[in-house]
Amino acid sequence: MGESRPDVGVDVGGTKILAAVVDGSGAVVASASGATPSPSEGAEALERALAAVVSTATGGVRPARVGVAAAAFVDVERRRAMYAPHLAWRGEPAADRLAALFGAPVLLENDATCAAWAESVLGAARGAGSSATVTVGTGIGGGIVVGGVLVRGANGMAGEFGHTVVDPDGEVCACGGRGCWETLVSGAALVRASARAGGGHRTGPEVTAAARRGEEPALTAFDVVGRWLGRGLADLVAVLDPEVVVVGGGVSAAGDLLLAPARAELAASVVGAGQRALPAVLRAELGSEAGLLGALDLLRRRGTA
Amino acid sequence: MGESRPDVGVDVGGTKILAAVVDGSGAVVASASGATPSPSEGAEALERALAAVVSTATGGVRPARVGVAAAAFVDVERRRAMYAPHLAWRGEPAADRLAALFGAPVLLENDATCAAWAESVLGAARGAGSSATVTVGTGIGGGIVVGGVLVRGANGMAGEFGHTVVDPDGEVCACGGRGCWETLVSGAALVRASARAGGGHRTGPEVTAAARRGEEPALTAFDVVGRWLGRGLADLVAVLDPEVVVVGGGVSAAGDLLLAPARAELAASVVGAGQRALPAVLRAELGSEAGLLGALDLLRRRGTA
Repeated sequence: MGESRPDVGVDVGGTKILAAVVDGSGAVVASASGATPSPSEGAEALERALAAVVSTATGGVRPARVGVAAAAFVDVERRRAMYAPHLAWRGEPAADRLAALFGAPVLLENDATCAAWAESVLGAARGAGSSATVTVGTGIGGGIVVGGVLVRGANGMAGEFGHTVVDPDGEVCACGGRGCWETLVSGAALVRASARAGGGHRTGPEVTAAARRGEEPALTAFDVVGRWLGRGLADLVAVLDPEVVVVGGGVSAAGDLLLAPARAELAASVVGAGQRALPAVLRAELGSEAGLLGALDLLRRRGTA
Repeated sequence: MGESRPDVGVDVGGTKILAAVVDGSGAVVASASGATPSPSEGAEALERALAAVVSTATGGVRPARVGVAAAAFVDVERRRAMYAPHLAWRGEPAADRLAALFGAPVLLENDATCAAWAESVLGAARGAGSSATVTVGTGIGGGIVVGGVLVRGANGMAGEFGHTVVDPDGEVCACGGRGCWETLVSGAALVRASARAGGGHRTGPEVTAAARRGEEPALTAFDVVGRWLGRGLADLVAVLDPEVVVVGGGVSAAGDLLLAPARAELAASVVGAGQRALPAVLRAELGSEAGLLGALDLLRRRGTA
């Protein structure tokens, strides 16, 4: 690193903080991670932990700029984490506090929004005129880019795809609603679908491994979850008509096990199926670094876009 | 009119063609209408009928520019009507043929997309940073404007809200799907809801009149349809987080009879309800002229936006 101050991207998830030094081309040149303090430890503990991970990644050099992607609703000015059930932030101006801590500009943005932006400029959707990125993990997050512009929404809350209702008679969701898309498409939904198909009690990665070995219950689970993914994608495509759909998040590691049934269901159920080009449905390319890369890229463009 | 050539907007619906001479401020100064020829009469008959209505509106003066809003999917270059079950166009370059007919520039665009644009620049959503316009009539159409930009989609098909699925176990839709939003929210859905509530066989306008008189079955019908409207709006708001939602189309003539239950259901079911500002849900302001005003405005901006 020498004496030059590096740009750093940080992803603050419910369990882990990941920080990376990113060069001018968007490549990660060093990284570090640590556990996320529990919300009960308070905001200061969270910010200290974040600073420690950043310091480890930079080798103790003070960063030039810090882009932070957080598992939180972030206000439209990108300063406050408004609603973050797994983090200690409760509406305080976290970006300003981190900027004071680092003596550097800080941008704070929702992690799935950041990931969608990163996939559109550096990842699977680069070069596309428009894209919707759907992040399938614990739940479903996402983001929308149209004509090179990130659609943030009036509250900075656009892209909350997980809580669109696909089955009003379905299961109750953590949000209090019923039949939200993420009750049917998530790591937990995959685990439940596998158990229902006779696969016993397995974790998500175990279901993926079993499907790769060709075991029937796991294949059935991916077919069920993938088809519900495609059903929801058909609604997104009806609304947005994007050129590319990117699917990321932990469950997307299964690749075509998930995406093949999703593509089939999308083709079967999207409006005007015979009259339109279907969007490419692609696996995300940037993995767990998508969020931090997106946050930093947004910061680098601030004032120029 | 004198000798100056006027700008004309045209709305080509399944039953009626409406043309209007529009001044520089977006105000209609003369208009005319005529019946839409049946699809079996062919594209030439449709174009002749369109030209006749335009000529009546202009008093025989050749138009300077013609913006055409059509009940059709229109390709992304705005030249071809690709899929228009109620019109004779079947993918021919209708915009070019009309331009030759008029000796004037012609822009062709989907009617609901045009209406959404018009409401965003001249109507209920003017001044808003982002808006989604939902047109409730025979079915549901719509359009999206974000940061002053119309979201058209890769196929020019963004905003097909009517065929997002809100109830996968619901009624079969004309599109072949099941439980599309427009099976639950439309003029026909209102008529069915009124009959189910004991209101007998009535047309949509009769149901509206009965509700205004305070008759119970009609009020129940608006409550049912309005709540389904709000349910679908909650999904749109989760995806787009718009500042303003505009509701237009024939059924919106009922005003708060429809919009009050929709607002209540939106507030109850949108994700992050306590953590966000809800969008204003406003009745469209431009009525049946929204489409033609939007088409003409888009044409006027062409090359400058």
